[in-house]
Amino acid sequence: MSQTAAPVPDWVRKLKPSGPQGTELLANERKQSSVNVEKLSQFMFGKDALERKQKILKVLQAEKVFNKDQDYFDGRVDKWEKALARAKRMNQIYTKYGWGDLDKRVAYDLISEPLPYALHEGMYIVTIRGQGTPEQHKKYLEPAVAHEHIGCYAQTELGHGSNVRGLETTATWNEDDKTFTIHSPHLTASKWWIGSLGRTANHACVMAQLIIKGRPYGPHPFIVPIRDLKTHKLLENVYAGDIGPKFGYNTMDNGFLLFNKVKVPHDAMLAKFSAVDPKTSKYIKPASPALVYGTLTWVRSNIVLQSGSTLARGVTIATRYLAVRRQFQDRDAPEGQKGENQTLNYTMVQARLLPLLAATFALHFTGKSMMELYEANQSKMQSRSSNTDDSPSKRSAGPEEVNAGSDLLADLHGTSCGLKSLCSTTAAEGLEVCRRAMGGHGYSAFSGVGSWYADYLPTVTWEGDNYMLTQQVARYLLKSARSVLKGNDPTNDTTEILQFYLKRQDTGAAFDILGKDEDLVAAFAWRSAYFTFEALRARDQEKKSWNSLLVAFYNLSRAHSQHLVVKNFYETLHSHSISTELDPATLGLMHKLFRLYALNTLVSESSEFFTSSACTVAQIRLARSKAVMQLLEEIRPHAVRLVDSWDFPDWQLNSSLGRYDGKVYEDMFYRAAELNPLNKRIVDPYPNSPVLFREGGNGPYADILKSSPKL
Amino acid sequence: MSQTAAPVPDWVRKLKPSGPQGTELLANERKQSSVNVEKLSQFMFGKDALERKQKILKVLQAEKVFNKDQDYFDGRVDKWEKALARAKRMNQIYTKYGWGDLDKRVAYDLISEPLPYALHEGMYIVTIRGQGTPEQHKKYLEPAVAHEHIGCYAQTELGHGSNVRGLETTATWNEDDKTFTIHSPHLTASKWWIGSLGRTANHACVMAQLIIKGRPYGPHPFIVPIRDLKTHKLLENVYAGDIGPKFGYNTMDNGFLLFNKVKVPHDAMLAKFSAVDPKTSKYIKPASPALVYGTLTWVRSNIVLQSGSTLARGVTIATRYLAVRRQFQDRDAPEGQKGENQTLNYTMVQARLLPLLAATFALHFTGKSMMELYEANQSKMQSRSSNTDDSPSKRSAGPEEVNAGSDLLADLHGTSCGLKSLCSTTAAEGLEVCRRAMGGHGYSAFSGVGSWYADYLPTVTWEGDNYMLTQQVARYLLKSARSVLKGNDPTNDTTEILQFYLKRQDTGAAFDILGKDEDLVAAFAWRSAYFTFEALRARDQEKKSWNSLLVAFYNLSRAHSQHLVVKNFYETLHSHSISTELDPATLGLMHKLFRLYALNTLVSESSEFFTSSACTVAQIRLARSKAVMQLLEEIRPHAVRLVDSWDFPDWQLNSSLGRYDGKVYEDMFYRAAELNPLNKRIVDPYPNSPVLFREGGNGPYADILKSSPKL
Repeated sequence: MSQTAAPVPDWVRKLKPSGPQGTELLANERKQSSVNVEKLSQFMFGKDALERKQKILKVLQAEKVFNKDQDYFDGRVDKWEKALARAKRMNQIYTKYGWGDLDKRVAYDLISEPLPYALHEGMYIVTIRGQGTPEQHKKYLEPAVAHEHIGCYAQTELGHGSNVRGLETTATWNEDDKTFTIHSPHLTASKWWIGSLGRTANHACVMAQLIIKGRPYGPHPFIVPIRDLKTHKLLENVYAGDIGPKFGYNTMDNGFLLFNKVKVPHDAMLAKFSAVDPKTSKYIKPASPALVYGTLTWVRSNIVLQSGSTLARGVTIATRYLAVRRQFQDRDAPEGQKGENQTLNYTMVQARLLPLLAATFALHFTGKSMMELYEANQSKMQSRSSNTDDSPSKRSAGPEEVNAGSDLLADLHGTSCGLKSLCSTTAAEGLEVCRRAMGGHGYSAFSGVGSWYADYLPTVTWEGDNYMLTQQVARYLLKSARSVLKGNDPTNDTTEILQFYLKRQDTGAAFDILGKDEDLVAAFAWRSAYFTFEALRARDQEKKSWNSLLVAFYNLSRAHSQHLVVKNFYETLHSHSISTELDPATLGLMHKLFRLYALNTLVSESSEFFTSSACTVAQIRLARSKAVMQLLEEIRPHAVRLVDSWDFPDWQLNSSLGRYDGKVYEDMFYRAAELNPLNKRIVDPYPNSPVLFREGGNGPYADILKSSPKL
Repeated sequence: MSQTAAPVPDWVRKLKPSGPQGTELLANERKQSSVNVEKLSQFMFGKDALERKQKILKVLQAEKVFNKDQDYFDGRVDKWEKALARAKRMNQIYTKYGWGDLDKRVAYDLISEPLPYALHEGMYIVTIRGQGTPEQHKKYLEPAVAHEHIGCYAQTELGHGSNVRGLETTATWNEDDKTFTIHSPHLTASKWWIGSLGRTANHACVMAQLIIKGRPYGPHPFIVPIRDLKTHKLLENVYAGDIGPKFGYNTMDNGFLLFNKVKVPHDAMLAKFSAVDPKTSKYIKPASPALVYGTLTWVRSNIVLQSGSTLARGVTIATRYLAVRRQFQDRDAPEGQKGENQTLNYTMVQARLLPLLAATFALHFTGKSMMELYEANQSKMQSRSSNTDDSPSKRSAGPEEVNAGSDLLADLHGTSCGLKSLCSTTAAEGLEVCRRAMGGHGYSAFSGVGSWYADYLPTVTWEGDNYMLTQQVARYLLKSARSVLKGNDPTNDTTEILQFYLKRQDTGAAFDILGKDEDLVAAFAWRSAYFTFEALRARDQEKKSWNSLLVAFYNLSRAHSQHLVVKNFYETLHSHSISTELDPATLGLMHKLFRLYALNTLVSESSEFFTSSACTVAQIRLARSKAVMQLLEEIRPHAVRLVDSWDFPDWQLNSSLGRYDGKVYEDMFYRAAELNPLNKRIVDPYPNSPVLFREGGNGPYADILKSSPKL
């Protein structure tokens, strides 16, 4: 179709926004603060990572297929087509440049949309590597690495998500010919939500209930070809496709998959940990379920690590825009300072945005600590066991929540579940707060926040639903509390806190939350311990049903995890490295951000703090009406520089409102007037005319309208 | 393109979900409750409205252009094209059937997406009718009604939303030739977000700063032709287009509009209330700004009225799905009742969903009271004044927040601002809670909640941003409190509450919130009054700046409005009509819903309740751990019948998960496998192949990939 929009007339091209310009406003913002952006970025990410990002950015920006101009306009099919083109090109690029895992992750981060090979690389290959035998590596891993097999990881079903043990797909061992029959007995057995399966994959790693001689052995992984390697058509007795559009994540072909008694050979079952002995038809048990358990912890820890930067994108965009956006005069402003006020100056905006700015740092430091904890535990475990195949880069993926024998992992497990739930919820909900704080323009796709939010949302559900996960945390805390009550010595931070509470509960707490940072942390610990023992009493003494306590468990997990975040932020600020890397002024500001995060959280959860006597009603009132408001005022002048330290390139943000240079309105206008394909269509606006478009081509709906009977 | 998806094989067609079937589960749900759905629906909507809906539904369902099968798949351009086709057909239909305003509103409600003529009908015609002279009606209204002119209402600009007085577009009076020059002096003066302007309209009602002899007179409405009536191309010195995709609302062509010194005749300025005398060039003041003020109140009251049903769609879908969805066993379930548990049985799900179910009724009854209050005030005003042109069906739309002289309207204004903010926020956020409560499948477009939520979101920003509006409420409450302090007699409910609080503040409150419903309402009133006087002290005695109090004002407005909602729900339950129309069992259940809404709100705002001494810490603790949990259990068995009473036809919901018959999985599968256009494409999955699709046609991105240089 030869479509041309009305060209932008010269008189329009000459127009500028009314002054002061966004560029000046942001320049002033940066002038009024002394935060050392470069040093702060380096402290957060390390110099290497910052340089790596610039190097990769340059490569991607030069590629036409990664041009983001049309990203917000494309419909589902175009979006996905483009994503496939990008996935292919990415593969060509990283092969050519020899990029490693770290480079690839940076590249995907900059591209900022899920690509169709993601599950091939992130789950299919990883699972075969982690759970396959050397022979299986030869047969399945090598062609996968060479991209001759394109795979996916098929676990979730139409009828079963969180409850992996309830999966319906079966893999029945055939003693006679030493094969397995993969079968979907019901419609609800259809695999569902499987990334890269809908259109891309020709192989699937299928989690199916292993059945030997009529006896079930739980879900196990099987490698099953699903599409012809040459024609890419579905193989016989396999039915698969894309599950359709979603609230976000539409660049991914999440798919469905059904089997009608498909036979696969004995070596289709990944057999490193458990297997069927082909001679005896006996089941061989997994040697160490703890390893699988560790893998899920790694996945969750990564979600925690990414939650800070996920939220920071929204906060960056909103902070810059709200420093450029001006609306109304300040009613009480002195005569000389009339003129419209930057919206970032309104306390109602600050109260929504600046605690989230503080949260970005809190989550980031927590994520880093979480990963360190994970790695420390891995080392310990590896020095104990001879198994060495569960390093993060070679992680295996397997059945959900196999109960670990290892106590060592229990703490890490509880921590990662609670933090995954809290941090991803904070990031998701925070992004929407940022979007709304931007008022009308926040609703435009060009804000860049809506699609980012929509793509992120599955994170609150997958790798453990954020509500469900809190049961794991509660279980861990109850167990810890029982151990402390028995008089066992504390073995970690959690049990220490519980023991401290027990010793002090008759004396009561007297934390100087407004005066001392360490007391603020202690108040969070106290509240968490208080509710742990409350829950324990309800369960063990009052014998309340598990179901009746789920809400209490959710709240308990949140209390515990908020304490962890506050503590991690506090400890980072008292680490040796920060005092050597940051100048005193910037470090002082980070302390204010810590206090803002902690006090603002305390205020929003105030009823739990006074119920547990972690602080007094008077303290809460002072925190709300004085301390938080004071901190907002003190942090406000540094907001733009603080978001700058997150170091998001404009190309990554792809946002009119979040531009580093403040050219917000120019960019909005450019995208609307010059990039928008709808403007290439000239309509026929009259209701009785059956033509829809006079220029630019009529689509399927014009035909439908035309064929409607005359009334 | 001749595209065919792989046909669904016979063995797939024969598959059923594993039992028990959704149909049985919902049948059981309906069997276990005695709620009289029909009576309850009639009480809520009236028999006439229910019958009207069925009649209109039948007409729409028979029309091919309103078939919703592809609604979730279409990209922006297709979506909009379809919406235009629908708008045209709607016009043909209601002309043919002679549908009135009420019928049309029902039809739009059933269609459930914004259509391109919406602003022509809802704002352009209404404004001319309300603010035009008889001569202007002849010239502009008649062709608009005949759809020869298609108009829009162009107020908001790229640089100005909430602050209407800050609009930059000018309309300068030319004494010499008796014309106005409409001009956009800056890029930020571009009209922006204007519905129906992007592609559809050929006329705009433009709000522009009237300037006479160099002196500004504030924003006034001007009728300006923008596109040629024959070619539909832009007129000279006009530049307009669609502003691009949004988070939702993509069936509407929200547009931008710039003028380069466009001359319009004297009669372009709508002159019923204010005008320029062409002979003297003098400005003629509006006779009664109160009328305009009343209009905005009507718009907000309508948002309040619709908030209940908006939320109810999400609650209906989630409740039905979560009664069908089963996951995990109840840990404490007795032996006989093993098997997977309906997710609606988990308290963590109930605690999220059932308070929202209660809220749907609370908001609905509040909306009805709000409209009654509005109409009562209209009658009073009309009996006082001789102006009769501001009835809802002939409402005018004009400059924002003209200060009314009438005290009568001040209460209504405060109430409508506060309720608009509270109720639309409750609905928007509640929808997202419903979506997430559905876990993974809630993220599918087929859930029907995501797009509904995304389309509704602008409501929290437009007609007064939900944060900004609370300043109006606070201003009203402060004024009321000052009047009470002066010893004036109460004139309405607000001042009565304030006076009661003043009298009792030294005695203290002793509300039996867990025992008596009327005390529960009184506790909400007490808290609202307490914070009103707190805010008054901060402003009048401590002389705090307005800006520093915005957060307190927001909280105050929420407290005041929550009291109104609780009170309205309470009063509805004690009205004569409900006791005659509902059987005692259903009425009893409605009382439980009232208590759940009130107590759950109290618990989530508990820190305000104890700070104000509206209740004790012990009461809050009991409410949280006992009363609310007990109510959830008692309401749970009736949940499905309660949502049935909202009477949403499946066609309206367009949701796999919310189907009345519970065929959730069958519907999900059907849409994915048989309606999904992406499944018509066979891809080439190999990274080094430049072809993207082997069948189904390659689009623009295949070309881009092909043209990328070899690496």
